[in-house]
Amino acid sequence: MSVSTGNSEAAIRFATEEGKLPLLPAFNTLLIELATYEKAASSVLATEASLLKTLSFPSNPSSGYAKTLLLFAPDPPSTASHLTSPQCAGMALYFTNYSTWRAAPGIYLEDLFVRPEYRGRGYGKRLLQELAKETKRIGGERLEWSVLKWNEPSIKFYKAIGAHPMDEWVGMRVDDEALDKMAGSTGGGGLERMQS
Amino acid sequence: MSVSTGNSEAAIRFATEEGKLPLLPAFNTLLIELATYEKAASSVLATEASLLKTLSFPSNPSSGYAKTLLLFAPDPPSTASHLTSPQCAGMALYFTNYSTWRAAPGIYLEDLFVRPEYRGRGYGKRLLQELAKETKRIGGERLEWSVLKWNEPSIKFYKAIGAHPMDEWVGMRVDDEALDKMAGSTGGGGLERMQS
Repeated sequence: MSVSTGNSEAAIRFATEEGKLPLLPAFNTLLIELATYEKAASSVLATEASLLKTLSFPSNPSSGYAKTLLLFAPDPPSTASHLTSPQCAGMALYFTNYSTWRAAPGIYLEDLFVRPEYRGRGYGKRLLQELAKETKRIGGERLEWSVLKWNEPSIKFYKAIGAHPMDEWVGMRVDDEALDKMAGSTGGGGLERMQS
Repeated sequence: MSVSTGNSEAAIRFATEEGKLPLLPAFNTLLIELATYEKAASSVLATEASLLKTLSFPSNPSSGYAKTLLLFAPDPPSTASHLTSPQCAGMALYFTNYSTWRAAPGIYLEDLFVRPEYRGRGYGKRLLQELAKETKRIGGERLEWSVLKWNEPSIKFYKAIGAHPMDEWVGMRVDDEALDKMAGSTGGGGLERMQS
C-alpha cells in the first residue's frame, strides 16, 4: 500500500531493496546526481552493496541507520515524453535524532533531492511535509537538516516554508585519520556493551 | 562490568534507569547544569519521566532514541572533600547518524558536559575518546557534534584534539507551530509504515 493523494499526484514510498520497483538503483542514481549538484561527486563512496548493508528498509526496519523516501512522479518530464511509467523524481534520506532538553526525538533530514527536470512541481515541499508528519507520528518535536551556505535559493525556500537557520551553532567533525587517532589513544577495554 | 583504566582513573558507564547507582537522577542534575552553562536553563523541558520514556538504556537497547554515557570520578572535587564515593562528574549523550555518500553510520554527540569542579582532568577528552571508539566499533566513519559559536574555549579544545569546523554549512530547524503547520498541510493518508 502506498500513498497517492490524487490521480495525478506524486506517490511517496519507502525505498525497498527488492520488489517490482527498482528503488535502490533509482536511489543510487539520485545520489550521484545530488553529489554532482553539490559539487562533490568524487566524495561519493557509496555503492549499492554498501547502501543495502547500512540502510533500513521495510523488510528490516530495526536494522540499518537511515530510511529513504522516494517520490514518484505520475508523468515523465517534458524532456522525456517517451516514458510512460511513474518516474523516480526525488528522494529524502533521514534518521532520528534527539533533543535532550525536550526529552523528545526528532527527524534529521540528511539528503533531500529533486531531479532538476522535475523541479517547480512542489515535490521538495511534499517530501518535507511527509517528514514533518513522520516527526509528529513518532512524538518528535523537531525536523532538522543542514544546507550549504552558498545555496541561497534553497535557504530562501526553506525559510518560506517555516524553517529557521541555526546561525549561532557550528558543526564539528572528526573523521579519517583524526578519528582513528582519537579512537586509538584511550586506554581501557571498552564500555560495557549494550546489545543493540 | 564497567571500564576502569587504572586504580585512580575515571570510570565510564552507560546510564541505567535503575540499579545501585542513581544514574538517571545524576544525569538529570547534569542536564540542568549544562543548560545553565549554555544560558538556557528555562529551555529544559525534560523530566526524569520523559527521559526514561525516550532514552535507550542497557535494559532496552532497541528502544529509545539516544544513549548516555556517564563518567564517574574516583575522587570528589576539592570543594567537596567530605564525599568519599565516586561522583558523577560528566556525561555524553549521543545517537547514530548516517553519511549517504559514505554509506556508513556515524555518531552524533548531542550533549557533552563535565561539571565545572571536575574540569582540567581531561574528562571531556576521555568521553570523546570513548565515543570515537564506539564510532569505529559500529563501522562508523564520523564523530560529529555542534557547538555554540561564542563558546570559543570549547572550539579551541575541539580543534586541538582533531575536530574540524563545518563552517560551510548552516543548520535549519522546523519546530513548534511551524512543524504543526507543515505536518498538517499535506494530503494523503500517511506513508506505508515501517514497523520500527
